[in-house]
Amino acid sequence: MARTDFTRMRCPVARSMAVLGERWAILVLREAFYGAKRFEEFERNLGIAPNILSARLRSLVEHGMLDRVPVGGGGRGAAEGEGSGRGGGRHEYRLTEKGRDFFPAYLALKRWSDRWMTDAAGPVVVLVDRETGAEVTAPVPSRPDGTPLGPEDVRVLPGPGASPAMRRRFLLLAADAELGEAMDDGR
Amino acid sequence: MARTDFTRMRCPVARSMAVLGERWAILVLREAFYGAKRFEEFERNLGIAPNILSARLRSLVEHGMLDRVPVGGGGRGAAEGEGSGRGGGRHEYRLTEKGRDFFPAYLALKRWSDRWMTDAAGPVVVLVDRETGAEVTAPVPSRPDGTPLGPEDVRVLPGPGASPAMRRRFLLLAADAELGEAMDDGR
Repeated sequence: MARTDFTRMRCPVARSMAVLGERWAILVLREAFYGAKRFEEFERNLGIAPNILSARLRSLVEHGMLDRVPVGGGGRGAAEGEGSGRGGGRHEYRLTEKGRDFFPAYLALKRWSDRWMTDAAGPVVVLVDRETGAEVTAPVPSRPDGTPLGPEDVRVLPGPGASPAMRRRFLLLAADAELGEAMDDGR
Repeated sequence: MARTDFTRMRCPVARSMAVLGERWAILVLREAFYGAKRFEEFERNLGIAPNILSARLRSLVEHGMLDRVPVGGGGRGAAEGEGSGRGGGRHEYRLTEKGRDFFPAYLALKRWSDRWMTDAAGPVVVLVDRETGAEVTAPVPSRPDGTPLGPEDVRVLPGPGASPAMRRRFLLLAADAELGEAMDDGR
């Protein structure tokens, strides 16, 4: 069975998985958020095989999250080994607006990872506001009165982009759920 | 070269990639957030091959994000086909606290995907507060005065969990960055 083409899926989150649903992609973005621009900076910070890094950078560029920008020659020494076989010419990988706009999602992922994937010592990295020195962490979705919102607190509805088939599916699912509850109550 | 074992990486976000850095993982979690509990609900909603679904559910259970819980037999009909070869016995996949706590990260990913991966029509799904009917979207990291915070607004510092080697690396990186800027200015 052919590998599913996630870019053709209707759900936007599924489409994002075409570029993000791979183990290194978000880590490469992390390095970009933390200031990496040149191939060797990504390579050194991540400890990643150069061919994998080339592929991930290429994917992020193709999906519009990074721009690969030539920068002036000369400067500090040996040509960078991008693993692409190209000689000369230095490049930087710069965040696009689409890439920058992923930062809140990265912060949310960091919040969860720091809570659930960390030893007792605590986070390896903390982010602080350059201006104020205050620690920067992802805000938690809440009601205006401050009550946190969890998945059980939300109802899932078709949005403006939902197809007629999707709308029917939501109606059928809702009806099926109610029927199931009625049957369970009747046991 | 052996495939990197992400669970042994020092960075918590990298460790999370061991379970999340795969194209279907977050979509399976999405269905759990939206109320799916039984194998066939996940299968039907996702349109995913059952062997892939089994593997993803198993991974999420192993990483403590879902619990696989036996539920009473009888009820509404044919045994569910979990693809695991087990007959009889019905199970539900329920979010653990670790799984529930991923919801803010999911919302942040949905916000980004709805903005950058959607047609002009808009989101396929909207989430609303069951109590108030208000739309629920991920809050954006901001200063107390409401100014949004982007990656360029934060400084990256070693946290309490950083090893001595990591602390030295941060110092070296900071020094190298300053040196580079001084050299660039001097051209």
